[in-house]
Amino acid sequence: MIRIGLYAAAFVALGSSLALTQSSDLIVEKKTFEMPSYTTAAGETIKGVKVGWEAAGTLNADKSNAILITHFFSGTSHAFGKYKADDKVAGYWDGIIGPGKLIDTNKYYVISSDTLVNLNVNAPNVVTTGPASINPDTGKPYGMSFPVVSIKDFVNVQKALVESLGIKKLKTVMGASMGGLQAYEWAASYPEMVDRFVAVISHSQPDPFLAAWVDLWAQPIRIDPKWNGGDYYGKEPPLDGLKGALKIVTLQANQWEWAQKTFGMALAEEGKDPARAMNNKYKIEAFLETAAAARAAVADANHFLYLAKANQIYLVDPSKIKVPALIINTPTDLFFPDELVDQTAKAIAANGTVVETAKIVGPNGHLNGLVAIAQAKDKIGAFLNR
Amino acid sequence: MIRIGLYAAAFVALGSSLALTQSSDLIVEKKTFEMPSYTTAAGETIKGVKVGWEAAGTLNADKSNAILITHFFSGTSHAFGKYKADDKVAGYWDGIIGPGKLIDTNKYYVISSDTLVNLNVNAPNVVTTGPASINPDTGKPYGMSFPVVSIKDFVNVQKALVESLGIKKLKTVMGASMGGLQAYEWAASYPEMVDRFVAVISHSQPDPFLAAWVDLWAQPIRIDPKWNGGDYYGKEPPLDGLKGALKIVTLQANQWEWAQKTFGMALAEEGKDPARAMNNKYKIEAFLETAAAARAAVADANHFLYLAKANQIYLVDPSKIKVPALIINTPTDLFFPDELVDQTAKAIAANGTVVETAKIVGPNGHLNGLVAIAQAKDKIGAFLNR
Repeated sequence: MIRIGLYAAAFVALGSSLALTQSSDLIVEKKTFEMPSYTTAAGETIKGVKVGWEAAGTLNADKSNAILITHFFSGTSHAFGKYKADDKVAGYWDGIIGPGKLIDTNKYYVISSDTLVNLNVNAPNVVTTGPASINPDTGKPYGMSFPVVSIKDFVNVQKALVESLGIKKLKTVMGASMGGLQAYEWAASYPEMVDRFVAVISHSQPDPFLAAWVDLWAQPIRIDPKWNGGDYYGKEPPLDGLKGALKIVTLQANQWEWAQKTFGMALAEEGKDPARAMNNKYKIEAFLETAAAARAAVADANHFLYLAKANQIYLVDPSKIKVPALIINTPTDLFFPDELVDQTAKAIAANGTVVETAKIVGPNGHLNGLVAIAQAKDKIGAFLNR
Repeated sequence: MIRIGLYAAAFVALGSSLALTQSSDLIVEKKTFEMPSYTTAAGETIKGVKVGWEAAGTLNADKSNAILITHFFSGTSHAFGKYKADDKVAGYWDGIIGPGKLIDTNKYYVISSDTLVNLNVNAPNVVTTGPASINPDTGKPYGMSFPVVSIKDFVNVQKALVESLGIKKLKTVMGASMGGLQAYEWAASYPEMVDRFVAVISHSQPDPFLAAWVDLWAQPIRIDPKWNGGDYYGKEPPLDGLKGALKIVTLQANQWEWAQKTFGMALAEEGKDPARAMNNKYKIEAFLETAAAARAAVADANHFLYLAKANQIYLVDPSKIKVPALIINTPTDLFFPDELVDQTAKAIAANGTVVETAKIVGPNGHLNGLVAIAQAKDKIGAFLNR
C-alpha cells in the first residue's frame, strides 16, 4: 500500500507540472508472459524470463490490427487506461490511446509490455526479469551476475510475446525515448513483422555524448557504499545513489523553460534563504528530491545500471531501415538532439523508405514527447491510415 | 612535482581536443593579495583572507589602463602567459592576451586573480581562502563551518585588490562563464569603477534549471562516505565524489558534436566491448575518468560545494546595469542557453545602455567561449577601442 502511494506520488509529482492525463474510462489488467529460457543477443542464457504486459481492444480474426507500444527508460507497460477506476493517474499516453481516441482501441488491439531489467521492478503491476530476480541456479538474486542485455533483447522478448498471441505482423510499433529505440530496433531487425513504426523523441545515430551521460546518471549508485558492488539484496539498498541517479534523469528530461515557469527561484522553505546557509535549498531542488524519492521507492539500483548499459550499447544503423517511419521529436530535447534526429530521418529516407516527421514544442524539453504528444495527432492519424 | 604533472595533465587532456594555446612568450608570476579581515555580503567575517593574482603589462601614470580578467568555475587566475618558459601549457586565454595580442599587454595592464573558494586550492600557484583553509580561531581547517560566499564576495575581494594598486577605474572587466557572472556583478555593483565589460558564455537571468544542475554536480561528493559532512582534512579525501562531480561539469561544458568528432563509439580498451560486460567502457568514459582524476588531484571537494553554492545564489538584475557591455556567447551552450543570454542583452539595452553582442560557433558547446574566443577578436577589439 505504501508502495502504491509512493508510485502514484512519483507520477503526481511529475504530473503536477506536466499535465499528465488523470482520467480514463479504460480498465486494463497486468498479465505475465513467460519464457522458460531466453538467450540474449550476446549469447547468454537466462532461465525463467517473465515480463508483464497490458492490452486493450480486440484482436481481429486475421490478427492484423495489433499495435505495440514500447516504453521509455523510467516507464512501464502502463501506457493507457487504469488498473482500477479510482487510480489517481492513467497510463502515460492515455490521452491518445483508448476507445474513440487517436489510437482507437475500438479498432486496434494495443499491447504494451514491461522490458527486461525494468527500472520499477518493485512497483505493483510491474513484472520483469533482471538483477533483482532470483537466479534459479542459486536461489539468490542475480545482482551483477545477471548478463548484459540490450535494446535488441527487449525487442526479442516482445517478439516472443507477440508471436505467442499468433500475431504475424504488427500494424505499428510506437514508442517514446527508449521506446523509440525499440521501435527502430524492431524495424531494423524484424522488418517483416512491422508494417510501419513511430519513433518519438529518439534517434538512431551513434551518440557517444549520450553514452557518456548515461554513465554519469549511474555514477551516484556506484559511489553509494550501500551499493556494495551490486550485492545489497536483503540489506539496506543504495537509496541515496538511486535517488541521485533519478534526479539527474528527471532534470535532464526537462528544460530551463519548465524550471522558470514551474519554480522560478522560489525557496524550498520560506525564510531559509540558500544564500544564508549551505543546507538551504531552492524549491526546484526540493522537487527533485521528492520526485526521486518517490521513484526510488519502487525502483532498483542494479536495474538502473543494466538499463543504462542497454541504452549505451544500442546500435541500429538507420540507413538499413526499410519500414515506413514517422519520426516525432522536440527541438529542445537534451537527450536526443534535434540535429541527430534529423540525421536519422535523412538516413532512412536516403534508401527510398517513406519517412514522415513532426516537431512538438513546449517548455518541457525531452518530456514534450510524452506530455504534448497530442500536438502530433494529425500526423499520427494520417500515418496510421496511409 | 606529482601535483604539477597532474595539473598539467588535466589541461593537456582537455587541450588535446580543445586546441588550447601551448606556447607563450609571456612569463607571469603569482603574487598574493592579503586582507586582514573580510566581511561577506551576507555579513560574516573571515580573518586573514588571501587570494593569488597575476599581471602583465605596465600600469600607466594615471592608472587608467587596467583590465581585469575574471575566471570560470574550474579556472584560476592563470589566464595568460607561463610561469616558466618550459611550462607545457599557457594561461587559458593566452591566444588573445599578451604583448602585441588582441588584449595587448604593451598597452594595457592586465590583472587576473584567484577567487575565494577556488576549486584548485591544492594546485601549485593557486592562492585562495575557503573551507580547506585554516581557521585562525581554531587552528583547524574550516570545513563546512566556512561561511557561504557569493559571486559578489569574489568581486568585493577583487575590488580591494584593484584599489590596493591605486586603480580607480578599470578599462574593462572580462570573463567567461562564472567569470562572466563576475563581470555582470562588477557592472551592477560598482559601475563607477568599470568603464565597460565583456561577458563571455554567461547571462545574468535567474535560472532555476542551472541552479538545480549545480546541485546535481555536487551530489556525488555528498554521497561519497569519505566526504563525511565536509570533515576529511588529514584523512582520505572523497576522491570518488570529487571525480564524479568533475566528470559532470566536464561533459556538460561540452556538446555532442565534440564527442562524435573526438571519440565516436571507440572502446576504452580494444577487445573489451561494452556490450559484453558491465565494466567494459567506451573511450569517452575513460577520457572523463582520466580528465576528472587529473583535476581532482589538485582540487578540494568542499571548495567544489562552496563554489557551486556561489553560482546558485548569484543574483544580478541585468535591467539595472548601466555600463556598456559586450556579450559573447555560443548557441549550443548547455549551461547558459542562447535564449537567456539574449534576454540579458535585451534587458541591459532596454535601459539605454550600449550592448554589443557576438556569437561563437564550434563543436565544443559552452567551451567554445574559451577555446574559440578568437572568433570574436574583431568585436572585442572594436569594443575596447570604442
